[in-house]
Amino acid sequence: MSRSQVSLAVVVPRSPVTSPPGSDVTLNCSFSYKAGADLWRVVVTWQHPDYRVVHSFYYGQDQLARQNETYRNRTQLFPEQLSVGNASLRLKQVRGEDEGWYTCAVKNQVENTKGDVQLIVAAPYSEPQLAIGLPRPGDPVTLTVKVVGGYPRPTLLWLNAAGSDITNQSRTNHSVDSRGLYQIQSELEVVVNEAETFTFELDHPVMEQRVSRAVTLHPSTGGLYTDKNPNCEER
Amino acid sequence: MSRSQVSLAVVVPRSPVTSPPGSDVTLNCSFSYKAGADLWRVVVTWQHPDYRVVHSFYYGQDQLARQNETYRNRTQLFPEQLSVGNASLRLKQVRGEDEGWYTCAVKNQVENTKGDVQLIVAAPYSEPQLAIGLPRPGDPVTLTVKVVGGYPRPTLLWLNAAGSDITNQSRTNHSVDSRGLYQIQSELEVVVNEAETFTFELDHPVMEQRVSRAVTLHPSTGGLYTDKNPNCEER
Repeated sequence: MSRSQVSLAVVVPRSPVTSPPGSDVTLNCSFSYKAGADLWRVVVTWQHPDYRVVHSFYYGQDQLARQNETYRNRTQLFPEQLSVGNASLRLKQVRGEDEGWYTCAVKNQVENTKGDVQLIVAAPYSEPQLAIGLPRPGDPVTLTVKVVGGYPRPTLLWLNAAGSDITNQSRTNHSVDSRGLYQIQSELEVVVNEAETFTFELDHPVMEQRVSRAVTLHPSTGGLYTDKNPNCEER
Repeated sequence: MSRSQVSLAVVVPRSPVTSPPGSDVTLNCSFSYKAGADLWRVVVTWQHPDYRVVHSFYYGQDQLARQNETYRNRTQLFPEQLSVGNASLRLKQVRGEDEGWYTCAVKNQVENTKGDVQLIVAAPYSEPQLAIGLPRPGDPVTLTVKVVGGYPRPTLLWLNAAGSDITNQSRTNHSVDSRGLYQIQSELEVVVNEAETFTFELDHPVMEQRVSRAVTLHPSTGGLYTDKNPNCEER
């Protein structure tokens, strides 16, 4: 291996790059460009692992004839910065399908080097909005939880007071907004004869988001926590 | 200033030490003890800013005759470690009243040096437990929130849908457990004629704990979020 080969080595982030859908993201890639080298001879190619061309640059300009249509009008290099070794790719309006590994390949007449960057498309969900329908006595109660602005789908769980999974008694709707973010709503219908606690859990491992919210429902017969603690003070 | 004076310099933590009530805490204090110096001549005194004696050590042993009674049987040095310059104080069963600045004073025949450590007594509150009493139609609904295991008292707020403070419509009880931790329960009684959102906020600045939980109550007439979004899928 000649010394000039080492000089072209590509540097990409080791950690995955996380972006919410609908946003623009930059996948960093730098190569050790030697001042005075012929930029006309530099070929930068960004590829998906399936060899789809994401973006291609040679003869001193973008060459998008063979660009995969998925990426049309959504990619951009920073051409004025190629001369300082910046081959980063800007990807606009990120979608869930964009998730995966991207190869940044840089070559000149003699050298050929590349590196892989992982893109993860994800966003955390909002704080759950809890809604409760107040029924006529004896009728079932509807507990509704709504979470918005997240991606991809989380795991939703409903638990009863005993900690048993009662998710199959619930109904869940997903909808997608214009940016590709989910709005999820889960309804649980329960009959309440005595005080009972229901717990809603959202598990969204991609964003390391885990939310658990409990609510106790009881027939209205005065306060629930009738504490007889002698230390009680009132404010 | 002679060189030996510098050698006795006391080192204490710059940041406050935070402990929950009912726990044991160590207030660190070290001094640059010179190997071979006469420990018999070392006097270690821990004091409260009002000059109450918290713990005193001289003639090679604890001297607790003038110890303030608040600290009786609750303090301890590490005598075997004095010879390596460790004058840290163990304070057991911390109480709210223990909060404040503690002075670690170390002296020998010629030198006299001290440092101040701040003790903060605080603990975060649990996730709020929400309970809802299901009334007969037309009767008011009782929303109850319970938080436990914290110290000192937090600020509790109830807000209506418009974001207005309706805390004065609530009733709050505080009780104290055997460790000195608070259990707080706040009840809000509301009449619900249409869907309305109520928000409970807990602000506990000492622990930088801020919790906000909203619940929407609505007369039971089918689902609340009747989304007609064409992208809806059902699971």
